[in-house]
Amino acid sequence: MSVDPYMRGRMNDRKSYVPPFQLGETLYGGAVGEVVDSRADGFEPGDTVLHQLGWREISVVEARQAQNVDTSLAPASAYLGVLGMPGLTAYVGLLDIAQLREGDVVFVSGAAGAVGSLAGQIAKLRGHTVIGSAGSPEKVAYVRDELGFDVAFDYHDGPVHKQLRAAAPNGIDVYFDNVGGDHLEAAIGSLNTYGRVAMCGSISTYNATEAVPGPRNMFEVVGRRLSLRGYIILDHYDRHAAFAQEVGAWVRDGRVKFRETIVDGGVQAAPQAFIDLLRGANTGKMVVRIT
Amino acid sequence: MSVDPYMRGRMNDRKSYVPPFQLGETLYGGAVGEVVDSRADGFEPGDTVLHQLGWREISVVEARQAQNVDTSLAPASAYLGVLGMPGLTAYVGLLDIAQLREGDVVFVSGAAGAVGSLAGQIAKLRGHTVIGSAGSPEKVAYVRDELGFDVAFDYHDGPVHKQLRAAAPNGIDVYFDNVGGDHLEAAIGSLNTYGRVAMCGSISTYNATEAVPGPRNMFEVVGRRLSLRGYIILDHYDRHAAFAQEVGAWVRDGRVKFRETIVDGGVQAAPQAFIDLLRGANTGKMVVRIT
Repeated sequence: MSVDPYMRGRMNDRKSYVPPFQLGETLYGGAVGEVVDSRADGFEPGDTVLHQLGWREISVVEARQAQNVDTSLAPASAYLGVLGMPGLTAYVGLLDIAQLREGDVVFVSGAAGAVGSLAGQIAKLRGHTVIGSAGSPEKVAYVRDELGFDVAFDYHDGPVHKQLRAAAPNGIDVYFDNVGGDHLEAAIGSLNTYGRVAMCGSISTYNATEAVPGPRNMFEVVGRRLSLRGYIILDHYDRHAAFAQEVGAWVRDGRVKFRETIVDGGVQAAPQAFIDLLRGANTGKMVVRIT
Repeated sequence: MSVDPYMRGRMNDRKSYVPPFQLGETLYGGAVGEVVDSRADGFEPGDTVLHQLGWREISVVEARQAQNVDTSLAPASAYLGVLGMPGLTAYVGLLDIAQLREGDVVFVSGAAGAVGSLAGQIAKLRGHTVIGSAGSPEKVAYVRDELGFDVAFDYHDGPVHKQLRAAAPNGIDVYFDNVGGDHLEAAIGSLNTYGRVAMCGSISTYNATEAVPGPRNMFEVVGRRLSLRGYIILDHYDRHAAFAQEVGAWVRDGRVKFRETIVDGGVQAAPQAFIDLLRGANTGKMVVRIT
């Protein structure tokens, strides 16, 4: 089963794009599992399926809520990550929301995470210069040496705006934002004219108990004609086929790499895994093994 | 001659979309005047022309930098305002940048200014509900009673986010931002899903000596799929013909109203007029009469 940063929003009791989780009820989220019994055409015992019923050991899934996945291409868990919702989020954010164009220099925050690691790799595979930020020396090494980002830095090593300016002295054209806060302010300061921001997430703010300061340089959005655009992947499943074909091929031939942080211990271990995810204990997609 | 908020940016010594003004040199900007002598075809003594040579009493203008204007449609000064650059800025910001759509509720800050007053009126003429903010009771009355905005409020009367929420209890869909700062934060808080912001100016921040706090609710841009887009009118002169035709017709038949704050005293009076503009002493377009 998957733990994803977006779930944090469902733990606030307020109106959002998905209803809040309810006290005393099972949490929902992505999961992959083996079919043990089926009354539906197209699903046989032994098949591997993806569904959204989440935090439970055994699920009764309606056929229309289940999707067979191809475990010859990648392990089942990859359909919760690089080949699943986080992967599509990276693909759509970079290509459709930020409208990646030839020659763009791209900055990705949360570059060692499930979404950021793919966003950066897609940009690299399309020939772009890519800069990434992450939260530990190990993650920085992973992003640079294994994923092939041109530059990576640890945001603990100094002000993000200074590190970004040093990494991209001629500025950036696209910012893929998973983090918000000081990363967003730094990116606005480094974006070139007509720069674009895909606002995907804001993990630095999710657990804040006081309002996080906003970017103090919003006036620069006018003069440099910047675009900042938020999106939610639920709106973009029409892009799934193109994503699955393109990224699937890259996964198959090894040009896209991915890691998973797998937590054992079943559903009981999932709350701590989720807490650890929000403080960045994962590299790549974090999943919990149920059995 | 025109004084415009964008000129403030040219008084900072930093790279921007236009070069900074130079110490000891004449300032540039929009102006209209009567041709007293001409060596160019198409310009005769007595013609009225618009040019960009700005802060001077007599200008030697190249033909390619001059444009004849029709003083039978509106007074010459209108070509510095409702029928000129500020008017085009309103038109493009609302229609192209914010992509005004049927049913949108529109909020305009700086609603008594040259740009805001036209942006709101265009939205009204297209059938939208329009809310405006301004900086004095007189301006609020002008915006509501003379320009026909549905609701107007004085931003001195209380927190903008509270006044906006009261004015638009079901939220807004488009925000035309002339002000930045707390107005932008309030608008983000009130924007409905898929809401759009045309970021035209940020007058609340231009004279700030310390960094102005940014919007503390940028994370809401993600969940509600908002778009914030900055623009500079220089990029959009391809829209001038459509603008001149549509808004020209509305000015001709009186459906678009406009005021001017005319300052006498010639070029000597222009610096104080500019300072007064930045603190909102004008209603409608502020111009300086040279002779």
